[in-house]
Amino acid sequence: MMLEKKATDFIADLSSAKPVPGGGGACAAVGAFAAALGMMVANLTVGKKRYADAEEEIREILGRLEGLCQELTVLTDKDAECFEPLSRAYGLPKETKEEQARKEQVLEQALYEASIVPLELMETILKTMGCLEILGEKGSRLAVSDVGVGILFAQAALEGASLNVYINTKLMKNRERARELNGKADDLIREGNAFRERTYAGVLAQIRS
Amino acid sequence: MMLEKKATDFIADLSSAKPVPGGGGACAAVGAFAAALGMMVANLTVGKKRYADAEEEIREILGRLEGLCQELTVLTDKDAECFEPLSRAYGLPKETKEEQARKEQVLEQALYEASIVPLELMETILKTMGCLEILGEKGSRLAVSDVGVGILFAQAALEGASLNVYINTKLMKNRERARELNGKADDLIREGNAFRERTYAGVLAQIRS
Repeated sequence: MMLEKKATDFIADLSSAKPVPGGGGACAAVGAFAAALGMMVANLTVGKKRYADAEEEIREILGRLEGLCQELTVLTDKDAECFEPLSRAYGLPKETKEEQARKEQVLEQALYEASIVPLELMETILKTMGCLEILGEKGSRLAVSDVGVGILFAQAALEGASLNVYINTKLMKNRERARELNGKADDLIREGNAFRERTYAGVLAQIRS
Repeated sequence: MMLEKKATDFIADLSSAKPVPGGGGACAAVGAFAAALGMMVANLTVGKKRYADAEEEIREILGRLEGLCQELTVLTDKDAECFEPLSRAYGLPKETKEEQARKEQVLEQALYEASIVPLELMETILKTMGCLEILGEKGSRLAVSDVGVGILFAQAALEGASLNVYINTKLMKNRERARELNGKADDLIREGNAFRERTYAGVLAQIRS
């Protein structure tokens, strides 16, 4: 697993000309950071008298974030796995009519799969944002800035992941499918923006003097 | 160094109730991701005939980003080092008048230092954004989405770091100094937003169909 490496090695791999990890994998990692920040806030909330009323809900959110953080860690690798079939499809011969048709078909499928993975990543990040919003309202006041950092990371990772949808749909022959996938990405960004705005405004209201 | 750990261990530490790493350290790490993405784009540009005109400038930017990525990695630890003096100051006794005065003075200094480090982080991220903007204009078209992800990460890390400025200035007795530090953070965010908007619009224009 890519994130089993030292963080400095992950950063070095990211900075190299190697195709993976790329922006998509980095978005999954930053999404995992956002989930981890939410877990930190939840961990600082549970067991505290002051937040006893929300104890059950926060415990439930902590469990959800654990799962989401794990999924996001795995998605770092899944992003990388899209790259190979795509690169193989580009390398197919196109001398004869048959080869051309075959290449187009294989490429179209690879483009579709390489759009589905970032959409899955976006959905996972959006669920993380839902948890962060509740933590901003009901979590420990001492950690409210970590909710703020988490929601900023999540929105950046969400929008960053959408670029890998747009890149791949742009090359699709099936324009209806391309529009549908782009529409899904646009909707997820809109929903994320709403989470970000609400949650971040609430954080700033508590922090800024 | 904190980022010498496995990335998954860094994420686990972030998710725990331990005070460090917290949001500030995570912002430095995400800033390092942004610099690394810029380096990837530069590495994919240099030596390519198509970009020969920009070769010298891109090489210079690659060198700058290497330094910035290194600084951001180090700032992950520096953020953590602020926490201890602050926590020690809070723990000082305040039974007598002398103790109260001493505590106030030590705390004020610790708050100042804990505001300066995130401001330094913000300045380093802003320099990274300047490099990303140029890469968006002159870097390899094949990696333009990575410029987009980088600029999104940088802006999220920049705003996230500002929260640690606001948290600490809010508690300062010296309100003039507090306003001055907040003003610096606000200016850096504004400048960052301008970089983000210009650069991201340029990326989307190339990617969206």
